[in-house]
Amino acid sequence: MKRASGVALFVVMTFLLTAAASVADPPKQEVAPAPNGIRIPEGYKNWRLLSSSHRTDNNTLRVVLGNDVAIEAAKSGKTNPWPDGSILAKLVWKDSQHEKWPAATVPGKFVHAEFMIKDAKMYAVTGGWGFARWLGTEQQPYGKDAAFVQECYACHIPVKQDDYVYTHPSVLP
Amino acid sequence: MKRASGVALFVVMTFLLTAAASVADPPKQEVAPAPNGIRIPEGYKNWRLLSSSHRTDNNTLRVVLGNDVAIEAAKSGKTNPWPDGSILAKLVWKDSQHEKWPAATVPGKFVHAEFMIKDAKMYAVTGGWGFARWLGTEQQPYGKDAAFVQECYACHIPVKQDDYVYTHPSVLP
Repeated sequence: MKRASGVALFVVMTFLLTAAASVADPPKQEVAPAPNGIRIPEGYKNWRLLSSSHRTDNNTLRVVLGNDVAIEAAKSGKTNPWPDGSILAKLVWKDSQHEKWPAATVPGKFVHAEFMIKDAKMYAVTGGWGFARWLGTEQQPYGKDAAFVQECYACHIPVKQDDYVYTHPSVLP
Repeated sequence: MKRASGVALFVVMTFLLTAAASVADPPKQEVAPAPNGIRIPEGYKNWRLLSSSHRTDNNTLRVVLGNDVAIEAAKSGKTNPWPDGSILAKLVWKDSQHEKWPAATVPGKFVHAEFMIKDAKMYAVTGGWGFARWLGTEQQPYGKDAAFVQECYACHIPVKQDDYVYTHPSVLP
């Protein structure tokens, strides 16, 4: 009888602990790495604001967030070059029209999240930046093979004088 | 002699402690409260992203950030009504054109930061929201007297069915 209650207690405790663990750590959906091996930066949706933009050539709204290194660099105006460890995250949505304010373009379908990761040595062949992009809410990695970064890099060459970055940190009080 | 060194030690310690406090807490530039008594929410520039927009009627780019209560409400889709304690911060810039990408509208001059603070009881006469706005990088409070909120509220009545909020949290992965 005593052993039986001991076993029962063990079973109940195991169940409770397992249940508690499930609540604390919901199974994460694994995001596949980009073809160049870059993994999607954790927690980027919680990063702080660097800037935003609206592109009328492809009808998208963009918000640029930065990790702590990037935000501190922006605050102190030391972004040319951006320091190693800076990561810029650009979140892109298709244009949509606000249903109650037609003159307001608002974020519609989520297009992709793309990143620039600064490491002057590791990414020396692409201006010191590692590039990666994940498509849609499914976060499918962009690019057939590691050479996809040439496309990213080529597009950023016109702003070589700004350390290959189009984003200017927006003015804040 | 003993008393004299005691006094000297006290003076030195006081000086050191004062100096340490000055380093830890640099004098903050005090932002005047809004005419309805609302004080500018601390640390709002570090809040997380809710959405963005581009208004072509007044040529401004906007980014909407939320405090923790608002972000959690958005994540769980419980924004109608938004829970008490939610604060939405809208940061507004005049349109500017990117010098190397003419089809990109980017943030120019900072126009203002405006806030909606949810407290269903305290702000019952204006839909459960406290409104406040600070102009420019100088953060001058907007409004001649407390009645300025009628202007804010009137503009939000068309979205009464969305708890008086125009912003829809943007879709994220």
